[in-house]
Amino acid sequence: MKHIHIIGIGTGNPEHVTIQAINAMNAADVVFLPVKGTGKEELAEIRRDICERYLTGVRILEFAVPQRQTAERTYPQSVDAWHGEIARIYEELIAGLPDDGSGAFLVWGDPSLYDSTIRIIERVRQEATLDFDYSVVPGITSIQALAASHKIPVNLVGKPVEITTGRRLAREGLTTVSTIVMLDGEQAFAKIDDPDAEIFWGAYLGTKDEIVRSGRLGDIAADILALRAEARQRHGWIMDIYLLRKGRDFEE
Amino acid sequence: MKHIHIIGIGTGNPEHVTIQAINAMNAADVVFLPVKGTGKEELAEIRRDICERYLTGVRILEFAVPQRQTAERTYPQSVDAWHGEIARIYEELIAGLPDDGSGAFLVWGDPSLYDSTIRIIERVRQEATLDFDYSVVPGITSIQALAASHKIPVNLVGKPVEITTGRRLAREGLTTVSTIVMLDGEQAFAKIDDPDAEIFWGAYLGTKDEIVRSGRLGDIAADILALRAEARQRHGWIMDIYLLRKGRDFEE
Repeated sequence: MKHIHIIGIGTGNPEHVTIQAINAMNAADVVFLPVKGTGKEELAEIRRDICERYLTGVRILEFAVPQRQTAERTYPQSVDAWHGEIARIYEELIAGLPDDGSGAFLVWGDPSLYDSTIRIIERVRQEATLDFDYSVVPGITSIQALAASHKIPVNLVGKPVEITTGRRLAREGLTTVSTIVMLDGEQAFAKIDDPDAEIFWGAYLGTKDEIVRSGRLGDIAADILALRAEARQRHGWIMDIYLLRKGRDFEE
Repeated sequence: MKHIHIIGIGTGNPEHVTIQAINAMNAADVVFLPVKGTGKEELAEIRRDICERYLTGVRILEFAVPQRQTAERTYPQSVDAWHGEIARIYEELIAGLPDDGSGAFLVWGDPSLYDSTIRIIERVRQEATLDFDYSVVPGITSIQALAASHKIPVNLVGKPVEITTGRRLAREGLTTVSTIVMLDGEQAFAKIDDPDAEIFWGAYLGTKDEIVRSGRLGDIAADILALRAEARQRHGWIMDIYLLRKGRDFEE
């Protein structure tokens, strides 16, 4: 039977790759590389760097990824339709594998967190007539890269952690002692009324362009906004993440 | 100046180790290995296996870790006092390094999640008269290993994820669509009244003894309880984790 490896490759530092990931890549006949063409050329470069460093004689097949269409669609509808389009591309890639052959998809961070490769591969299995199975290799997420760069634990002792989106933070404010915000296109940290919370922010984590800042939210939110806008302008894109924390260890 | 590497090594599979972790271990003069003597001999074996596979000529120094004393103390007090004891041991280990030398602590999973090595090293820096700095290398957490084994995303599309403890789950029940429970010594999943939630459970993740089960909580909670009790008896210890999920992708 054909086999697909869904492999987490970490967040921008080619050394985030695990031994398991390297072995899984090299067990594949083909590595499928998305070519986004969305201006994130530095990210494509990091993927190519990973392939050059670690692959030994595995074929690389580049493919184009469609853009998500948002016009006249709710967010779930737009994501659902987009996944459907990608599923048809994946189906073609898998169909092109030799009998009993295997292919690998390389995923930023970890395949389990705010990534849909697993969902889409499951969809191909449900919808297509192809016979294949798949396995998942975990990778370092941007949460872990953020914490490592700031040299902090993400949780207070024995306390919970919430991982959420910018949209939800803007709507609900801070509801837990430790809140990690991913996918924030609207800089929700600057909209909430919680000046005494601490923020630990990072952008381009793991890459040579990494920027990190931390401090009392009321003191540095404006600085981060300015820094973020300037960096985004310069690179043409930005990926950032932050932890908001209220309270201290050993408080009941 | 002396330097300490705090290195995440993943969760039981020696191949979870990243290239960055291997390089950091080998940049150290000494790797400090805790000898717990708590019956978790398999865990000590995995650490030794990692050292044997990846270290090239780095000295290994084993040290004993004290047990946490809980008598007549609240949970925060007991953890605080325990950290204080470990800090004194770390201080001695660091004091024993050559001038400008470096040492490495290997941490299960990732140093940022429910681990106190960073906290304790920070405490040594605050309390001791030693001059040193430190850096953190991220590692694969048991959350990622759980998701990879079950081949699932931990979040529903665009939805939040909570990471919490068994104690809190037992007290508060399920409050979010995706809840990851770590450090659950009381099998809180069997105490909550949410039979339609799905559970994705795993124990000894990443090791040859890995067990995973998933299904509707109302259907399989009792099976997991029995399986867990049997495995714990056989091994003399258990480390497990689970995700509880309510709802589906693309629901508003």
